[in-house]
Amino acid sequence: MERTTPIMKASFQGEPGAFSETAARQLLGDHVEVIPCQRFTDVFESLVSGKVQAAVIPIENSLHGSVHENYDHLLHHDLPIVGETYVRIVHNLIAPPGVKFSQIRQVFSHPVALNQCLSFFEKYPQFEKEPFYDTAGSVKMLMEKRLPDAAGIASAAAAERYGGVILRKSIEDDRQNFTRFFLLKKKASRQTAAKWKTSLVFTTRNIPGALFRSLSAFALRDLNLMKIESRPLRGKPWEYLFYLDFLGHVDDPASRNAIGHLKELADFLRILGCYPAGHA
Amino acid sequence: MERTTPIMKASFQGEPGAFSETAARQLLGDHVEVIPCQRFTDVFESLVSGKVQAAVIPIENSLHGSVHENYDHLLHHDLPIVGETYVRIVHNLIAPPGVKFSQIRQVFSHPVALNQCLSFFEKYPQFEKEPFYDTAGSVKMLMEKRLPDAAGIASAAAAERYGGVILRKSIEDDRQNFTRFFLLKKKASRQTAAKWKTSLVFTTRNIPGALFRSLSAFALRDLNLMKIESRPLRGKPWEYLFYLDFLGHVDDPASRNAIGHLKELADFLRILGCYPAGHA
Repeated sequence: MERTTPIMKASFQGEPGAFSETAARQLLGDHVEVIPCQRFTDVFESLVSGKVQAAVIPIENSLHGSVHENYDHLLHHDLPIVGETYVRIVHNLIAPPGVKFSQIRQVFSHPVALNQCLSFFEKYPQFEKEPFYDTAGSVKMLMEKRLPDAAGIASAAAAERYGGVILRKSIEDDRQNFTRFFLLKKKASRQTAAKWKTSLVFTTRNIPGALFRSLSAFALRDLNLMKIESRPLRGKPWEYLFYLDFLGHVDDPASRNAIGHLKELADFLRILGCYPAGHA
Repeated sequence: MERTTPIMKASFQGEPGAFSETAARQLLGDHVEVIPCQRFTDVFESLVSGKVQAAVIPIENSLHGSVHENYDHLLHHDLPIVGETYVRIVHNLIAPPGVKFSQIRQVFSHPVALNQCLSFFEKYPQFEKEPFYDTAGSVKMLMEKRLPDAAGIASAAAAERYGGVILRKSIEDDRQNFTRFFLLKKKASRQTAAKWKTSLVFTTRNIPGALFRSLSAFALRDLNLMKIESRPLRGKPWEYLFYLDFLGHVDDPASRNAIGHLKELADFLRILGCYPAGHA
């Protein structure tokens, strides 16, 4: 009898066919078993509880900005980022077979997707935008309910999975629309890569020049910041957490020294992960 | 015949009874005529076209973070920020008269409001969260449709305006929930204040230390940064605009020098406004 390797399970938020599923397959290959979750918090919990071995979360969209909720979850869990990938977002108008473009009055999708197709909605003012929890989920719902005057906005993968028909392709305002995803595991393991990224979070004392001094830890060592994001600190209105990505491995001497220097300056500091750098 | 001063008109996004209306009254007094608009872009357009003399927009919530869309609109319009105010956000569960708490299965509100009452939803798992375009609008809709099993989440002002009944008061997860609003006009006019804030937006070259050098313009002059926010630069994936607030009047010598210094370092710089500092 042959022994087979158990298939890795990875959770993501959304319905099957969501962009997060594409990200999961880009990061883990086609043999991964994907476990859809309703909420981001469920995605994190499924990894904590051991129900899955990996989790895939969107962290940033090139047009819309950061997915703040996931920054908050990263802070409240101790689940290292072990990879990143970029998915090009293509939005399509999808309806059940038989529904004609001219019949459509309501268009369901996630609010972010609706807002990324504003030129399309300006061109067709008869369409009412209907916010829905999920892009792929809007197609699934329409296939079940068979509304005669409604369409959804989602990926081609969602159309294929649920048997919807793409009535208009690539209706997003801006083709430069990418989402960056993180791969999380319970523990980091050894990886090889040519180029590394490190993500961390810190707070500063609320004094003039505090952020400037914090960034000096990186600037004085010629480390390239890829991103900085501020988030309100819960319970302390108008104080901020800073999330920061820089190019480099945590164990490089320059990175080690920069992190040591930042520790002197920051009230709080945590490394969120060190992972092979992806590219858009 | 007595001559009366024409009443100032101010636009805001949302239905009457929205938190933005409260902000408008805090900023402009009770005699202002408020003009509700469907979208933020309509709020900006109404000021550009002269339909109103002032506009009030939310820019940041102490829990949820920035209203990114409005940062984008500030960039694309030349409408100075002339004031700011803070509104404490209290969410209430509101239903049409006759609907009992025990009958409720669906709860409508803006997704941000729904996400700010998660402990409440965990306590009552029978409630389905239904995203809607507006907090006050959800109450208005329920009063019209009279769904027997639905409630909305909105301000006490919305309950009063539409005749809804508050079934549960202050159901938000965190009492430290404030939203900061900007007052925009077509042109800045002379004001007096003890404490000023200046908001600006800039981009840096994508080189190591660029943000650090930019912040030096403020740190070297002991100017206190109140906020820094990065936004993706459209058409240039993974390059960022920085929005920054500091304490000080643009005409103070230190501020003038800091802005001059930043101009040397930034590819692009624009002052968004200088206004009396509000407080939470």
